[in-house]
Amino acid sequence: MTMATTPAAPDLAMVDAWWRAANYLAVGQIYLRENPLLAEPLRPGHIKPRLLGHWGTSPGLNLIYAHLNRVIRERGTHALHVTGPGHGGPSALAASWLDGTYSERHPNVPRDAAGMATLFRQFSQPGGVPSHIAPGVPGSIHEGGELGYSLSHAFGAAFDNPNLVVACVIGDGEAETGPLAASWHGNKFLSPRTDGAVLPILHLNGWKIANPTLLARMPREELDALLTGYGWRPIHIEGDEPARVHADFAAALDEALDEIAAYKATAQRRPRWPMLVLRAPKGWTGPRTVDGTPVEGTWRSHQVPLAGVRENPEHLALLDAWMRSYRPDELFDADGHPTPIVLANVPAGDTRLGAVPEANGGALVRELPLPDLHDFAVEVTEPGASSSEPTRALGEYLREVFARTANRRDFRLFGPDETESNRLGAVYRATAKAWQEPVTDLDAHLAPDGRVVEILSEHTCQGMLEGYLLTGRHGVFSCYEAFTHIVSSMFNQHAKWLHACREIDWRPPIASLNYLLTSHVWRQDQNGFSHQDPGFVDNVINKRPEVVRVYLPPDTNTLLSVGDHTLRSRGLVNVIVAGKTPTPDWLTMDEAVLHCTRGAGIWEWASNDDGDPQVVLACAGDVPTLETLAAADLIRCRLPELRVRVVNVVDLMRLVPETEHPHGMPDREYDALFGTDVPVIFAYHGYPWLIHRLAYRRHNHAHLHVRGYKEYGTTTTPFDMVVLNDMDRYQRVIDVIDRVPGLATHAATVRQTMVDARTRHRAWILEHGEDMPEVRDWTWSTDIREPQP
Amino acid sequence: MTMATTPAAPDLAMVDAWWRAANYLAVGQIYLRENPLLAEPLRPGHIKPRLLGHWGTSPGLNLIYAHLNRVIRERGTHALHVTGPGHGGPSALAASWLDGTYSERHPNVPRDAAGMATLFRQFSQPGGVPSHIAPGVPGSIHEGGELGYSLSHAFGAAFDNPNLVVACVIGDGEAETGPLAASWHGNKFLSPRTDGAVLPILHLNGWKIANPTLLARMPREELDALLTGYGWRPIHIEGDEPARVHADFAAALDEALDEIAAYKATAQRRPRWPMLVLRAPKGWTGPRTVDGTPVEGTWRSHQVPLAGVRENPEHLALLDAWMRSYRPDELFDADGHPTPIVLANVPAGDTRLGAVPEANGGALVRELPLPDLHDFAVEVTEPGASSSEPTRALGEYLREVFARTANRRDFRLFGPDETESNRLGAVYRATAKAWQEPVTDLDAHLAPDGRVVEILSEHTCQGMLEGYLLTGRHGVFSCYEAFTHIVSSMFNQHAKWLHACREIDWRPPIASLNYLLTSHVWRQDQNGFSHQDPGFVDNVINKRPEVVRVYLPPDTNTLLSVGDHTLRSRGLVNVIVAGKTPTPDWLTMDEAVLHCTRGAGIWEWASNDDGDPQVVLACAGDVPTLETLAAADLIRCRLPELRVRVVNVVDLMRLVPETEHPHGMPDREYDALFGTDVPVIFAYHGYPWLIHRLAYRRHNHAHLHVRGYKEYGTTTTPFDMVVLNDMDRYQRVIDVIDRVPGLATHAATVRQTMVDARTRHRAWILEHGEDMPEVRDWTWSTDIREPQP
Ligand SMILES: Cc1ncc(C[n+]2csc(CCOP(=O)(O)OP(=O)(O)O)c2C)c(N)n1
Ligand SMILES: Cc1ncc(C[n+]2csc(CCOP(=O)(O)OP(=O)(O)O)c2C)c(N)n1
Ligand SMILES: [Mg+2]
Ligand SMILES: [Mg+2]
Repeated sequence: MTMATTPAAPDLAMVDAWWRAANYLAVGQIYLRENPLLAEPLRPGHIKPRLLGHWGTSPGLNLIYAHLNRVIRERGTHALHVTGPGHGGPSALAASWLDGTYSERHPNVPRDAAGMATLFRQFSQPGGVPSHIAPGVPGSIHEGGELGYSLSHAFGAAFDNPNLVVACVIGDGEAETGPLAASWHGNKFLSPRTDGAVLPILHLNGWKIANPTLLARMPREELDALLTGYGWRPIHIEGDEPARVHADFAAALDEALDEIAAYKATAQRRPRWPMLVLRAPKGWTGPRTVDGTPVEGTWRSHQVPLAGVRENPEHLALLDAWMRSYRPDELFDADGHPTPIVLANVPAGDTRLGAVPEANGGALVRELPLPDLHDFAVEVTEPGASSSEPTRALGEYLREVFARTANRRDFRLFGPDETESNRLGAVYRATAKAWQEPVTDLDAHLAPDGRVVEILSEHTCQGMLEGYLLTGRHGVFSCYEAFTHIVSSMFNQHAKWLHACREIDWRPPIASLNYLLTSHVWRQDQNGFSHQDPGFVDNVINKRPEVVRVYLPPDTNTLLSVGDHTLRSRGLVNVIVAGKTPTPDWLTMDEAVLHCTRGAGIWEWASNDDGDPQVVLACAGDVPTLETLAAADLIRCRLPELRVRVVNVVDLMRLVPETEHPHGMPDREYDALFGTDVPVIFAYHGYPWLIHRLAYRRHNHAHLHVRGYKEYGTTTTPFDMVVLNDMDRYQRVIDVIDRVPGLATHAATVRQTMVDARTRHRAWILEHGEDMPEVRDWTWSTDIREPQP
Repeated sequence: MTMATTPAAPDLAMVDAWWRAANYLAVGQIYLRENPLLAEPLRPGHIKPRLLGHWGTSPGLNLIYAHLNRVIRERGTHALHVTGPGHGGPSALAASWLDGTYSERHPNVPRDAAGMATLFRQFSQPGGVPSHIAPGVPGSIHEGGELGYSLSHAFGAAFDNPNLVVACVIGDGEAETGPLAASWHGNKFLSPRTDGAVLPILHLNGWKIANPTLLARMPREELDALLTGYGWRPIHIEGDEPARVHADFAAALDEALDEIAAYKATAQRRPRWPMLVLRAPKGWTGPRTVDGTPVEGTWRSHQVPLAGVRENPEHLALLDAWMRSYRPDELFDADGHPTPIVLANVPAGDTRLGAVPEANGGALVRELPLPDLHDFAVEVTEPGASSSEPTRALGEYLREVFARTANRRDFRLFGPDETESNRLGAVYRATAKAWQEPVTDLDAHLAPDGRVVEILSEHTCQGMLEGYLLTGRHGVFSCYEAFTHIVSSMFNQHAKWLHACREIDWRPPIASLNYLLTSHVWRQDQNGFSHQDPGFVDNVINKRPEVVRVYLPPDTNTLLSVGDHTLRSRGLVNVIVAGKTPTPDWLTMDEAVLHCTRGAGIWEWASNDDGDPQVVLACAGDVPTLETLAAADLIRCRLPELRVRVVNVVDLMRLVPETEHPHGMPDREYDALFGTDVPVIFAYHGYPWLIHRLAYRRHNHAHLHVRGYKEYGTTTTPFDMVVLNDMDRYQRVIDVIDRVPGLATHAATVRQTMVDARTRHRAWILEHGEDMPEVRDWTWSTDIREPQP
């Protein structure tokens, strides 16, 4: 192993000492349950029974942290730290313990010998702390368990934080992932004036788990070209001799920060920002060879380089020597306190990376100055008499949110080039799209300080928004419904983060992550099958109920109400599914607020059940609601004696028992709404079995019949989409006739008329290429009309 | 609009004619339902009622296709075409109609006036064809509805096709996506000797939907650096003057193909392969301005540049002039046949891009020479007496598959740097990991012609595998279970493609896409919460049942049987969830084959129900099976009089009714297996509600109680994971006691012992950091042992 003994240049002695201390602590966490200060030679009994953790990345991460500490101390840099290789938990925990921040947040782990013992013992152990850079680590906004999102998180953190430098360590393996590869281009959106800086630090340790990395192994000039092509100026630091690397890294970091400061002072548009490339051995300073096989500087150092320490005396001796190579007696006094030379490299107070306020966004987040919903409401004189485009109205509302946050700059909208297509374009009257590249007169709404971010990368949108929220701001991600699947996995990780934060009292909740899923399955008839997929919600509701909400507002005013509600909420992921095409306006603003607050309710004006329904027509989603009302209309004309109740569900989680979700309905309420023994014919926006999965414990479950998207899609007319999936008004009437006991014979003619209507529909669209006028032009009316043939 | 009139260089006249013809046909598809040959001036009645489609990308795509035709004709290039911007359906349809291949595959659309009329009318219309490059387009292996996967598809197609040149058009917007950004590095895996070539053609038309693209707007030298950094040598073609662009494009394409040929002849490792960059206006040759607003060369040309054609006479006149600007009378004779000058640019027979055999993989795919399973089986003398690592045995089996396909080279394994970690390392005894970069003596198993592909990009793995399968080969994607979510969306798109192909008789099914999900939720105790997510399956089963299968083999021999079965299957996505850690061997190979063929069955040796169970202990997945057997063991020791049936489910789709899935069980079989009125205590590998979603129609549904992963995870011991989620053996015994009528009082002491065991477990792991010996060392035994305290 390389002994970290070479004396560093005078002013770097404390950096080196800090580095050695952090390395020592990282190794200790992986191996030791006793004898943390090596007061006696290591014995098998000192070793943990399960050896877990990732050593390989840790020395490099520690080096970077050590040097960030130096510039924070010396230059007063206001820095936030994001670590891509989140498996480097031992490093992050060591660093924040040295900071003192770990002990401040976790008083049971003081910065002394007892604390060090706990630090070691708790790592990756039952009842202890996770092996990754989880929310329990002070200063972390990025767990990094799933690789690829560090740099987009860093950009999100830097937006609208003009004084912040976000140092972002990127693993060379991580850099192979798609999300990371896309996110280098984040610099095209980062204003040198109104945003902070991002300083990527590519950690080129050469290896991932069992393979060399592409970036480390491709020709040097290609790597330089690649980074330059991404718009960065790489500054290289390379070596395995600590003193040399310390000196070079310090110089490089100073150079980069000087350059950043200069650009911040002068640049109007994107400069070629500096970045660092650290080429140093994986598992540096660890065992050079084990059992004759090279380990330091190879992929074999990725996890636990010495596996047999408990059984194999040679391994145990190697571990002992390895830990002592850091000269712990110079680093910790007899009581386990870090010595002055180590502490000299710890910055003060809130400038410590473990204490920087931006890393604990929940403590910073302020309430948004939201406007009065009524100013954006559509007027509704009678249910269904008019129609409007829901997202267009929401766009006006969001425009006002942008206007009111013009100075605070703590609200952003993210999207993959679809804001206009999703009919939210009104926001451009209050802000622009962020854009640092040249602008031509063919462009619209581009400006360096815009707060709408449009990049054709759902991953980057999601990652930037997460970073923005995690540092205490607000935002919305608007996306084609089908393509939110692209970020399913990122959503999972964020939801897990939010869930874990609920157990951490010093992390108050951040603003919720709000998805607006539009251009949805029923209105992608022109793009066809690839764009038709409502299944993101199915993934969302697998996550802990404490942190997820799903809303399906049926019209414009309900969308506004839900939008307002979600922007006020905290610590959640809110999914809103709403259409952009003209949709009947069912509820006035006041009714909408009441309905959305209830989350589900009877629409009396469409019902004639008088408290005793023979059938419940339930619906969730804008198109299902439209088809349900049209079916109710058909029924009241043709089967006027049938007692029908129409129930609309906005808040999907109302359907589950209250014991399962905070929004769940008690059984009594559910039974009152849906009945216990009448057929419930449910039209749901997405995959129909999702409703069964939510309601399978309910008393009426055997009477529940759900229609929804059954994965039949193509390029066709809007109404044909619902017919293809048996969710159309005619089929709903047929379902009613088939399910209500005793109705079948009586209503046989009506049933036949419905069957024929579906047949007529098919013939009509084939001939005319658009929907039948009776469908297209249908509106709800409070007057009951005569049945049409 | 730019008139495409400049005479092209002599040998390019036919290329230009073909281009104009394709442009004409693209416009016609978007607008016309009558008068395809413009025999009379356009009238509103000739126009479709719904104007759908994407014009902007089409002229560029057509230009590229025209030039590919030229080199195929002139040089005999064996080319396959992949088009990233799949919304360019009008272009692809036009091209294959000019090819003649469209009419060969769709005889109802002949290459004459009537056919042209149908071609126009069917586009994006009900009962017609999708707007994207769907499977119905001959020569397509890439729909491109969801952007980002073209280049990884292209690499997959090129692997092991040494004579193929895969020309891959990448949209400049598409290039912003993560998956696309990662996939440029595919060249590090492409052998110049044993693989084909990939020729990326970056379609730099400047815009996406409503924004400029990053790649078009960043400084030119950065673009060059970026592409060079990705390992390519860009050749630029730029202009808006057709003749110039024709000449330049032809020269560039020749240059690139010459270079490719030279490298193929000589290169041992990766050369810097050429690529093309075409900078030409979006919506080129379309209306230059509409209502005073620039359209050609702007984002406004993305979809339908003239929206008001039916109502607005000015727009109609513009459309008329636009279409006539291509001089259709030179391109089509009075009968609508393409004229000789157009046909002169159509290659012959199977070299046509619409006819290239590799684009119809199902017609090429050969049965794999699979070995005899028994040669890889573990010996099982008694159920549970031994244990083995399932994926390790599968690795040996796959090694033999690699060995047997060494010459055919039609089998590959893809993974994000986890093959070794997933214990499939045996394959390296038969093949290497593909790697074109330098190799050091620290590396293991890297070679240019290896057939294992490891890149830390789940997207690239998935995309390459899809491309490989779509061109008629076989493969497996092995991935950490949690991180398969990363490719949820790609899976969706592939499943949709497979489903659509079922309707196309000339596309025989390709080999199935086989996922091996391992390092799964119950055995990621060391990586913790971020790595614990079994929800990929939930997404999979939302797709059409015809194309998806899910298998949960409980042990090594069943994994082998399932592996073998899935490698024989066609046209499906198979998801296999299996562990890599030591797992009891329950079944002999012969029993395993029978059990897997049934998909679900009673394990008599663990049951004592004599055909009349009081409770059914059901399980699906390796860890649930282990806990179930351990529970059965506890029960037979402590409640020996209780009649217990143990049912194991391997094939998850057996649980749904036969009407819902091809593998679904008839009710009678289900009722026989699970009973109709006894409690079924089900332990499932993933989220428990998934079982309810599958079985909610079954008679016994009210008696079904499912345990599974409830999203409680962290870094802890393996057994603690099951305890945290209430799926452990002790809880299962408690569930039985609580659910079997009449048992509660009688078994109260046993129940209490179980509760205490959970408490003891908690205390033990906190103290010892590993599981209790009674848990860790438990094995099933045919002899019933005395209960332990
Ligand atoms: C998306 C994703 N795929 C796979 C993994 C499994 N994995 C954990 S660490 C690792 C290698 C990381 O290499 P690198 O980024 O270079 O980190 P370092 O070398 O610093 O450890 C992999 C593949 C993961 N965590 N995330
Ligand atoms: C992953 C994904 N996100 C968003 C979209 C919506 N979309 C369709 S076309 C398009 C713009 C494509 O631009 P480009 O790739 O440059 O194609 P071209 O300019 O040739 O039309 C977008 C964003 C999509 N199809 N896929
Ligand atoms: Mg690395
Ligand atoms: Mg483009």
